[in-house]
This record gives sequence, structure tokens and C-alpha cells, in this order.
Amino acid sequence: MEQVGFIGLGIMGMGMARRLIDAGYPVTLWNRTASRAETLIEQGAIWAESPRAVAARSDIIITIVSDTRDVEEVILGESGVLHGVRAGSLVIDMSTISPVATQAIAAHLARQGAAMLDAPVSGGSEGAAMGTLSIMVGGSDEDVARARPVLETMGKRITHVGGNGAGQVVKLMNQIVVVGNCLAMCEALLFAQKSGVDVRRAWEAISAGAAGSWMLTNRGPQILERDWRPGFTIELQQKDLRLVLEAADQVGVPVPNTAHIFQLYRTLQERGLGREGNHALVKALEALAGFQVQGSSGEAS
Amino acid sequence: MEQVGFIGLGIMGMGMARRLIDAGYPVTLWNRTASRAETLIEQGAIWAESPRAVAARSDIIITIVSDTRDVEEVILGESGVLHGVRAGSLVIDMSTISPVATQAIAAHLARQGAAMLDAPVSGGSEGAAMGTLSIMVGGSDEDVARARPVLETMGKRITHVGGNGAGQVVKLMNQIVVVGNCLAMCEALLFAQKSGVDVRRAWEAISAGAAGSWMLTNRGPQILERDWRPGFTIELQQKDLRLVLEAADQVGVPVPNTAHIFQLYRTLQERGLGREGNHALVKALEALAGFQVQGSSGEAS
Repeated sequence: MEQVGFIGLGIMGMGMARRLIDAGYPVTLWNRTASRAETLIEQGAIWAESPRAVAARSDIIITIVSDTRDVEEVILGESGVLHGVRAGSLVIDMSTISPVATQAIAAHLARQGAAMLDAPVSGGSEGAAMGTLSIMVGGSDEDVARARPVLETMGKRITHVGGNGAGQVVKLMNQIVVVGNCLAMCEALLFAQKSGVDVRRAWEAISAGAAGSWMLTNRGPQILERDWRPGFTIELQQKDLRLVLEAADQVGVPVPNTAHIFQLYRTLQERGLGREGNHALVKALEALAGFQVQGSSGEAS
Repeated sequence: MEQVGFIGLGIMGMGMARRLIDAGYPVTLWNRTASRAETLIEQGAIWAESPRAVAARSDIIITIVSDTRDVEEVILGESGVLHGVRAGSLVIDMSTISPVATQAIAAHLARQGAAMLDAPVSGGSEGAAMGTLSIMVGGSDEDVARARPVLETMGKRITHVGGNGAGQVVKLMNQIVVVGNCLAMCEALLFAQKSGVDVRRAWEAISAGAAGSWMLTNRGPQILERDWRPGFTIELQQKDLRLVLEAADQVGVPVPNTAHIFQLYRTLQERGLGREGNHALVKALEALAGFQVQGSSGEAS
């Protein structure tokens, strides 16, 4: 069994690392905030002092951190993976970052004889905890085949979509759909509320038909309960949408709906709601409409 | 077994009437274009000369026609259901029409001793043919209980959402989500196309995760094949969005996303594409972007 290194124990990484440990992989951990690793160490994982140290004792090194700069830091930085990685090792970056930066990082690693895959994920913190993520992989056929058993402990659908960077492109495409589905849901819930029907029964009625979506099924009930706990935070959603807008501008494709939604999230960030879940988008529409969606519990915030 | 009357053999009604006949109900038919009834008559249905004549020989009368005016015509018109309906009969209107007009029609029928339910559907022509529609029902508990066996031959999820008109409100809410999910999908497919990834593999990768939706699963492949056959036509979609905009204005709720999408559909209607499926929305974005989504077959139109 390959030695696995795992760097980044955020909202997603935590569940994913646990899946690897539960599957029996020997896992070496590093995280910026060391205390996040405690429960995993109790379950048998080993702590290392730096990303470099993780790389030195691992065959496969997984990174899942916040943004392009963070990946550059943990891989290319002074105590980064690049300076400990062995020839023949494989780095799998599961963060969502710039497709262009991904290709540059892969080139650096190649000079050390190490391969790289970009393998960003979708499916929220629930998917991370249950191993039902969708994983979009960019890289060579050979490296994808090698990574597959490890990826299968974390994901239900692993799709090889192209060369280095292609996984990131598809992840950004995924985010365009996620936020578009979210806006549609929020507008519909406000319409139902103001029309005087029981919003919960209305939600139930439409979830199984042509309006059905992961977003409606999983985040609709949270809105009805005004439960803003994040599967994915507004801060991270904005970060991903910035990547979309940047990439869309680079390749020359208009994304008017996503651009509009980015601006709506911007208003929530300024109101200090950046740590709430991305379904709190409904609060931007509520501010426009002048009233709130009331679920069965009806508690306002 | 109750005698069932069925009025309206359009893209949805055709499959639904067949489900009733297959379930063993004695069905009497009427449709504006009589030839549409031929195959159903071969399967045992009986033709009647008018909606009035259908009503005279039925315990439950189902209507599913295009718009508010059409329902008013087949129920309240000179040879309409109202003039043949027996006291104790139940009219189930499964069209998508104005919630306010629905309440007025129910009042007319009540004066003849007949009850009414509004029971609009979602799930497309596939759902109609396979009996997997979602049905949103407005009316009294008693009438819903009576209708349930008949509705269950056509739908998988029957949800009683409130009194007369509430089914229509929830159906309009459903349409807000459907077109919003459609716009999100179209924008994402264009982004993927221009970013140079294999769009079909990209579609496959995102369909199972947080971006997943009925729209993406069912209409995404049609866009990749440039197959514009309608599950639901642009003409009908625009009709439903007009009802949304009218109802939203009446109750006082902003629906900026739906208003924008209505305008995009408007451009397609003017280009003569009203009979294509609602997923041809992608053509409005393609016109803006100056290029097309190419599926594996790559045939352009």
C-alpha cells in the first residue's frame, strides 16, 4: 500500500483524510493549524513538521488548501513539497485553483521527477465525509490509473477529463452551475413565500421533478430552517467565482449570470456573512425584496 | 372504477391519457385536433364531440391544454365542461395557468355542484409517458383523496400544497427553478467549450456532484448532440414565464433572474425557434458569445 501524505485539513480535507485512514492507508499529515490534526492522529495518522517532511515520507502527496497562492506555498515554498519530494512520487492537488498556475506547478514537479494531477472535487462537506465526492482529474493516463484506488476512497465518480489543468477547468464549470442553481432556488423560494403557499410543501412538490437539483434537495431545507452552517462558505464560493471570471476573461467567453451572482455574494461578504454557507445567497435577494423566506420553524436571522 | 374524461392531447396529455387507458380506466376523449386521438381510440378510448359531451359521461374530467384562455374555453365556453358536468363530478385541471383565473373557474363549477382541483405537472414528456410526473395539487382534502388513484397512474409524487390555486403557484415556482437551472447549464457548457476541454467528459464529471440537476442530466446530452426536440417547447416555456412575471408583479416579489431569462427566450421566439425545446436557450448565449457548444457528433444548427 502506498504511503499517503495529506496537506490541508479544512472543511473538505478533514473528511477526506479520515476516509483514507479508515481505508487503511498509512497517512502522514500537515496542516497550517496543527490542532486540526489531533483526532486524526488519535486514529493512527502521523504528524510531520512541514509539507517538505510530508513529501519526504510519502509516495502520493495530496494537497487540498484554499487558493492558488496556498497551493504555491505548500508545494513551491521554502519548506514545500517540491524540496522533499522523491523521484517517482505523485502529487495530487485537490484544491480549486487557477488552471494556468496548475500547469506551472506541474512543470516544477516534473523537474524533480515527480508527477502531478489536478483533481478538484465537488459534493460538499457531506460528500467529503461519506466518500461520495465527484472528482475531476487532469493529468496523464498512467498517473490517473495510479491515483485511482486512493481517489476511490474519497469519491464516487472519478472522471479523467484531460491533461494538467483540465480538472480545474471542469471544476470551475461545476461552480458556474452550482451558483446558478442556487440563485434559481432562492428566487423561487421568495416567490412561493410571497404568494402565500406553504413553502416547505412547495419545496417538497418540486424537488422530484424537472426542477430537481442537488442544490434544491440539500440546501433548500437549510434555507427553510434558516440554517446557515456551511457545506461550502461564501468566502470560498467567491474565491472560486473569481477564478471563473478570470479564466472566462482569459479564454474570451461571456458569463453574465455568474458575474451577476458574484456581485450578489459580494454584498453578503461586506455584511460580514463570509463564513456562512453559499445558500445564504437568499439573503441578498431578501434584502432586495424586503421580506424573508419563512420555513416551518420560522426563526429569523 | 370512475369514468374519466380527458381533454387535451398535446405533448403532455398524450402520454398521460395513455397511462390512464393502460391502467384500465374507461376514458372518454376530446381534443381540438381530432386526429391526435386516433391511436388512443384504437387502444379502447371513446371519442366525444365536445368538452360538454365528455363531461356528461364522466365522473372525473381532466383538462390539460395550453393557456388560461384555453382552459376557460374548454370549461366555461359554449360547449364547455360546465354545461355538461353532473353534480358530484370532479374537474382536475392539469394545465399551467393563472392562479387567480383558477379560483374563478372553481367558483363557476361549484355553482353546478362540481368540485375542482388545480393539478399542474412537472417532469417533461418523458415523465408523462412513464408516469413519473410530479403533480402539485390545490383544492380540498376530500377532493384530493378522491383524485389520488387517478393521479397516481400519471405521477410519482403527488403533493397537496393548499387550496384552489396553490397548485398553480407551486408550478410557477417550479418553472423559476427549471429555467434558472437551464441558464446555469448553458453558461457552463459554453465556458467548458471555450476552455478547450472535452465537453462531454466535463458534463459527465459534474452531473453527479453538487452541480447535479434534472436539467443537466436530461437536457445536457441533448445540447451536446444539438438535438432540439422538445420535452417542453420554448413557446410553452415563455407562456409559463409570462404567468410567473404576472403573478410576481401581482404579489410584489422581484424575480430578476426569471425576467432576464424570459427576455433571452424572447430572442429565440423572434428567430422562429419557438417549437424547439427549452434547452435551446443555449442558442441565445451562443449568439452573444459568437461560438457554439460542440458535442461529440458536432453537427451544427
